[in-house]
Amino acid sequence: MTDAASPHPLDAALLFQPAADGTLAGRTSPAYWNMVDPFGGITAAQLLKAALDHPARIGEPVAQTVNFSAPIAEGAFTITVKEIRSGRSVQHFYAELVQGETIAANATMVFARRSPTWGHHASPMPEVPSAEAVPVLAKKPPLAWLDAYEFRYVSGLPSIGSEAHEKPQSASSLLWVADQPPRPLDHVALASLCDIFIVRIFQVRGLRTPAGTVSMTSYFHASAAELAEQGTRPLLARADSIRFGDQFHDQQAELWSDAGKLLATTTQVVWFRE
Amino acid sequence: MTDAASPHPLDAALLFQPAADGTLAGRTSPAYWNMVDPFGGITAAQLLKAALDHPARIGEPVAQTVNFSAPIAEGAFTITVKEIRSGRSVQHFYAELVQGETIAANATMVFARRSPTWGHHASPMPEVPSAEAVPVLAKKPPLAWLDAYEFRYVSGLPSIGSEAHEKPQSASSLLWVADQPPRPLDHVALASLCDIFIVRIFQVRGLRTPAGTVSMTSYFHASAAELAEQGTRPLLARADSIRFGDQFHDQQAELWSDAGKLLATTTQVVWFRE
Repeated sequence: MTDAASPHPLDAALLFQPAADGTLAGRTSPAYWNMVDPFGGITAAQLLKAALDHPARIGEPVAQTVNFSAPIAEGAFTITVKEIRSGRSVQHFYAELVQGETIAANATMVFARRSPTWGHHASPMPEVPSAEAVPVLAKKPPLAWLDAYEFRYVSGLPSIGSEAHEKPQSASSLLWVADQPPRPLDHVALASLCDIFIVRIFQVRGLRTPAGTVSMTSYFHASAAELAEQGTRPLLARADSIRFGDQFHDQQAELWSDAGKLLATTTQVVWFRE
Repeated sequence: MTDAASPHPLDAALLFQPAADGTLAGRTSPAYWNMVDPFGGITAAQLLKAALDHPARIGEPVAQTVNFSAPIAEGAFTITVKEIRSGRSVQHFYAELVQGETIAANATMVFARRSPTWGHHASPMPEVPSAEAVPVLAKKPPLAWLDAYEFRYVSGLPSIGSEAHEKPQSASSLLWVADQPPRPLDHVALASLCDIFIVRIFQVRGLRTPAGTVSMTSYFHASAAELAEQGTRPLLARADSIRFGDQFHDQQAELWSDAGKLLATTTQVVWFRE
């Protein structure tokens, strides 16, 4: 846990200085740095927070698509959020994250004032041992963002070396994951958690080649109150991919509460070379 | 089949008049009308075609997110496409579909000049009888867009009446689908086909209540050449949903060629009432 004097790294990454025209000035976060640019999840969280901070915002996040259009350089950026349309209960935003002349990322977001309706869970959470029964992953590559999460792999721990596997491995992974240091769950944390899967092609091939998420879409199925109930306990995360080829592959994933409720569905398309 | 004198309804729906500033003027299509506004798939196809027509466009469609922010009224609309960033092989666009003062839909799109890489199909197509062995659905509700497609349900044919099912039915459907009249497959047709699933909550409850797609994301995994090989033959389509509640539900789906290749993955979040 962290205190007010030393905010959690996620909250520190979401601190913006608003300009008179509503543009938000932010900075990249060293705690969520990847190889050559920020972990995509933190960019998603920053774009979502920018919309949450919009003065006309109503309701809670329902959907977000983030497009990663250029590498984000270490340092300052600005985010502009445009209100596309606000109905009685559903609201649409468009945002751009800019560095200099470059739009490095953009996002569409849907918010809603949700109210109770008929409800149904059509599929149960995968059957897995509880998080406490699964060891925490200790050996991680030296990337800052990997230290911002605690991983407990139930299955599909990537084994990445200097040579490709003889046969492609399964594209599927199932793991418990939590913010590290612990932080009570909310929508910005969930938006970032949607990107915690190691790039599927690394796992399938056993080889790290140039690759990066081009576009990511996340749907949020739980209210802020339900996320708060989850607290700091790990979420169950499952990811899979089907087709790899001609520089791109798909990824589908879900995040579940430890009470077995679907919290988010998320999908991304990943660029790769070779 | 249709001839040049009488274009296919899909091609007729994609005819735009460009203005001097690059804005495209289009019209809603009677052939793809839904209850009170157009079938979402045709809006996706129109936004994709607008980006395909952009003078700076390189490569082929890889990803599209469409947000349905207001009902589209019958008649004229304009589409503006903004080039967000163009790298050597990957390009990002943002588009808005406007009627009067209202942004009725917006979209982000990714295009790429794809080149050969390592390739792999991690999961096979579901095992199903061939399209020829499955009867064409004859009895359809009187909605124009349903007549723009030929449906052959393998499983999960929605049964929708005036009373809810006693128990929620499966959210899953598996069907062969093709443009009607037949039309050789391309990316705009595929973008539209990504939306051909009957709203999952209608199927699960057996009841039609107010509902509509709020946001849809589609990833395209095949080149124009591979889509052309599919010709006019039906695609296999599979959809499922997990969580329904508080006015929204998820949907995940895939479209496969009859040769067993994944052509598109698509996901949407659906708003509903009651």
